Amino acid sequence: MSARDLRFMVNEWLDLDGLGERERYREHSPSTFADVLQLAERIATERFAPHARQADQQEPQLEGDSVKLIPAIGEALAAHANAGFVAMSLDEEVGGAQMPHLLETACACWFNAANVGTTVYHGLTTSAARLLLTCGSPDQVQTWVPPMLEGRFLGTMCLSETEAGSSLADIATRAEPRPDGTFRLFGSKMWIGAGEHTIGENIVHLVLAKSSETAAGTAGISLFIVPKWLVDAEGRPGERNDVVVAGINHKMGQRGTVNTLLSFGEGAHLPTGEAGAVGYLVGEPGRGLAAMFHMMNESRLGVGAAAAAMGYTAYLRSLQYARERLQGRELGVPSTSPPVPIIRHADVRRMLLKQKSYVEGGLALVLFAARLLDDTLTLPTALERERAQVLLGTLTSVVKSWPSQWGLAANDLAIQVYGGYGYARDYDVERLYRDNRVSSIYEGTHGIQALDLLGRQVFKNDGAGLRVLLEEIEKTVGRARACGGLAGGLASELETVAGELEATTATLAAAPDVALANATLYMEAFGHIVVAWLWLEQVAAAHGGEGDFYEGKRNAARFFYTHELPRAQTGLGLLARGDRLALDTPEAWL
Amino acid sequence: MSARDLRFMVNEWLDLDGLGERERYREHSPSTFADVLQLAERIATERFAPHARQADQQEPQLEGDSVKLIPAIGEALAAHANAGFVAMSLDEEVGGAQMPHLLETACACWFNAANVGTTVYHGLTTSAARLLLTCGSPDQVQTWVPPMLEGRFLGTMCLSETEAGSSLADIATRAEPRPDGTFRLFGSKMWIGAGEHTIGENIVHLVLAKSSETAAGTAGISLFIVPKWLVDAEGRPGERNDVVVAGINHKMGQRGTVNTLLSFGEGAHLPTGEAGAVGYLVGEPGRGLAAMFHMMNESRLGVGAAAAAMGYTAYLRSLQYARERLQGRELGVPSTSPPVPIIRHADVRRMLLKQKSYVEGGLALVLFAARLLDDTLTLPTALERERAQVLLGTLTSVVKSWPSQWGLAANDLAIQVYGGYGYARDYDVERLYRDNRVSSIYEGTHGIQALDLLGRQVFKNDGAGLRVLLEEIEKTVGRARACGGLAGGLASELETVAGELEATTATLAAAPDVALANATLYMEAFGHIVVAWLWLEQVAAAHGGEGDFYEGKRNAARFFYTHELPRAQTGLGLLARGDRLALDTPEAWL
Repeated sequence: MSARDLRFMVNEWLDLDGLGERERYREHSPSTFADVLQLAERIATERFAPHARQADQQEPQLEGDSVKLIPAIGEALAAHANAGFVAMSLDEEVGGAQMPHLLETACACWFNAANVGTTVYHGLTTSAARLLLTCGSPDQVQTWVPPMLEGRFLGTMCLSETEAGSSLADIATRAEPRPDGTFRLFGSKMWIGAGEHTIGENIVHLVLAKSSETAAGTAGISLFIVPKWLVDAEGRPGERNDVVVAGINHKMGQRGTVNTLLSFGEGAHLPTGEAGAVGYLVGEPGRGLAAMFHMMNESRLGVGAAAAAMGYTAYLRSLQYARERLQGRELGVPSTSPPVPIIRHADVRRMLLKQKSYVEGGLALVLFAARLLDDTLTLPTALERERAQVLLGTLTSVVKSWPSQWGLAANDLAIQVYGGYGYARDYDVERLYRDNRVSSIYEGTHGIQALDLLGRQVFKNDGAGLRVLLEEIEKTVGRARACGGLAGGLASELETVAGELEATTATLAAAPDVALANATLYMEAFGHIVVAWLWLEQVAAAHGGEGDFYEGKRNAARFFYTHELPRAQTGLGLLARGDRLALDTPEAWL
Repeated sequence: MSARDLRFMVNEWLDLDGLGERERYREHSPSTFADVLQLAERIATERFAPHARQADQQEPQLEGDSVKLIPAIGEALAAHANAGFVAMSLDEEVGGAQMPHLLETACACWFNAANVGTTVYHGLTTSAARLLLTCGSPDQVQTWVPPMLEGRFLGTMCLSETEAGSSLADIATRAEPRPDGTFRLFGSKMWIGAGEHTIGENIVHLVLAKSSETAAGTAGISLFIVPKWLVDAEGRPGERNDVVVAGINHKMGQRGTVNTLLSFGEGAHLPTGEAGAVGYLVGEPGRGLAAMFHMMNESRLGVGAAAAAMGYTAYLRSLQYARERLQGRELGVPSTSPPVPIIRHADVRRMLLKQKSYVEGGLALVLFAARLLDDTLTLPTALERERAQVLLGTLTSVVKSWPSQWGLAANDLAIQVYGGYGYARDYDVERLYRDNRVSSIYEGTHGIQALDLLGRQVFKNDGAGLRVLLEEIEKTVGRARACGGLAGGLASELETVAGELEATTATLAAAPDVALANATLYMEAFGHIVVAWLWLEQVAAAHGGEGDFYEGKRNAARFFYTHELPRAQTGLGLLARGDRLALDTPEAWL
């Protein structure tokens, strides 16, 4: 990551210190925020980055029903938890530090940039703890949350099964009630990140299972706490629960994060003398999916942040390489002159500019969303908070999908800048490309995000989501116009494209079946417009700034508007014409 | 690969059998051609595909100064050589089968689709043999070529060094003459595929080295044969030459192809009692790069063919998966109904359509180029042959770069269709994505190809390259118009875009420095127009065809024109405006 750019975004643009003056965050001073961000940088650099390659090379091993990881992963996570990062944004009353989500996300970027495979363990733990805080009973919170916040118990989210990934209505894991109010779970869960390991003392699985045979679709799905170790009255891990790892998935990347197939209730352990994994219902029966969506929404924002951070790191690596690697000469210079750093070649600069426009655009997006999350908690009036919530809901799928797509594109370009060296496993850019490829798959695929955006956000609530976004864009356009110069010019371009988005969306609403068939096109165009907006926000924030950093911001914004924004217009054109190819193509023609 | 589509392209469109009536190929019957293609399919399926995953998992190992590969690689290559594939397109008088390049490329697609890592060994051998046939002395041909064609001696191309990749003028390996006419080489070469192994009896390295200290740039570079084992008068390998492997590069993919750092003249072996690797000058001193370009041009076509084949295979895998994988329901269908194959979801069909338009477009491109190569050898008049040569020269960078870029995009989409499973190493789509990533790097990076296209082809020879292309496009447009219907409509669209290409190119010629800074944009637009042209060629060839196969062709062509061709227009628009961002951005702004 770039400490300078994070400071620009967090302080100069998104006004972390102003946010810190709001009631919720008032106990912290600006200098505390700065210290925390520096601490994240230090721990990421000293504890997370050094074992990233080793974790990639020495994958988790299955030994019996246990998983063995390289020790450096657990050590890094201990340092992370001890510094308070697991709980940094949670309420003080539950043991959190009650710091802004904006700051938390900025810190997470450091950890993800250094080593996403290790970061995931605590990312899941924080999300799981927050879900329990929102939906769990006071007893459940008291039992499970404090050890999670201390990094002693780690969390997972158990949704997918081998036959049910995107389609959660079809899960087959079932939960049977017992007279004491507990449940016994039977079934298996696939793709469970951090599903088994010996970091800390326990694993708290949050599991979706069917607690009713009769309720249709997702209505019969409930959420359960299923710990690896049952705990005694003092919360100490005691007997082994009947959840065991049944296999490990070997992935392209993020190899440090063990990915498991888990079996529940297969009789490997019988802590209660009868079959079934002991589970504790969280919230109301049949409301499991709604509860899990808390965690999924947070995870979607987290995936976007990680994807942006991975792309950003690759950009910085390739920028450094381009400044140092001597190769060839500028066009027209005789070969008797000494070779120059490859950054002197226009095509290399083009690749770096493109990366910069992607990764700084992606980082702006994820930090903006984090700031919005803070706004939903801290704005003075309910109306303002609701408005922030609507905008955040509208943007969530974009925050997840856009950095996943274009952060990876930056990773791809970073390899290209390195040339043959980029294809060798000796350089981080190779691993980062593999690590980032999963971002558009997990926590809802690219296509699922698109259906969410168009079907659940844009087409619902009388179009409120898009309306709020367009109003915000218009505000930015006004501010940018007042800046004049480049900002004014880009403002006019953005206004034009935003108008096209509005008009096209109105057209689509008339034929929603065709529109939803093209939802991915819509999301991709929408995403580019959102990022163009946030580039304009950055240009406005950089207004009056002098020197290379601010000139670089303006230049990258200009690049994004010139080279990237036309993609959105092409996409909107296709959508407006109601292209039916994806919808109508018979299977046999493929 | 799809046997059906290969038959369509090779027979119905590119008229292999008609080509077979020309003098050079007259000894073969159409049924022989069909048998050879089936044999390739069989050997690829039975001998190449089965160890593709094993070769990925068990990388080549360095043991002393030797490299150990899994035995299946050598066994597959033996079957390949014994069936005559190494020499199939070479002249009969040197032991070849003198078959069309079109057929050879179609066969290569089978091998590359099955297992590119194994295929590379013989691909290099064929290219090296052809180079020696073109540039070597009769003695050199007699000594080295026959055992290469039998698969007993394997070839390499040794160009890059650690400090000289794209910039060959800077190579530091030097060759010192000896009184007996041989040379001694000193230096090292990087990224040498198949640089060391024990397949066959010998390795014939073709090495670029500086034989003059005084000649500037590439003028001092000569080409040398440097065998691993020196041969006796009967051509039998005898003493070990002073070329040894100094290291192995561990790559993202294509792991079955050992990639080496080679040291020449380090004194590991002293067959002649003095230091230096024994080398034999090929052709004239100082003409090494020109000679090597024979091999590089062939390799560029080969890389394109492999990239198309890898993308094609991933497409077929994901198509199969999409037909079988049950998940979710169509929009609006209640969740009580059974899940459907995911191909029923519009977004999955969109991804498959996109892949189809890429991989069949890419395959068309590489087969068309192979057919052009045949034309350069067999058209009746020198004028016609020269015209074919001009067109092939113009297209070579596109044949290399387009499938590398869009074949990989198909690989990426294939993973997306598989979802989480696509990210797991249990499925071929994961490996194919890694295997294909190198295609836009080796044999000249994407950016180098673009400079070649615009600087060496389009801007030179008074624009002859583009002119010939546009004339060919116009012929196709005429034929397609006569077909009417879809073909007629697409013909008009193509004519419009081709006109834009011509106009934009004329604009660029006025400011070549800006144009060359944007050469990649130009090549990408150019490539999409070329592939659109070949899609129209396919539609014309499919004219009158009924049933799913032909409907599928027309539908995919329509998709390419609707969803992809606009990219070219966006790119041409940027070029026409003379965007200077890549050229002018100061390094400090990145």
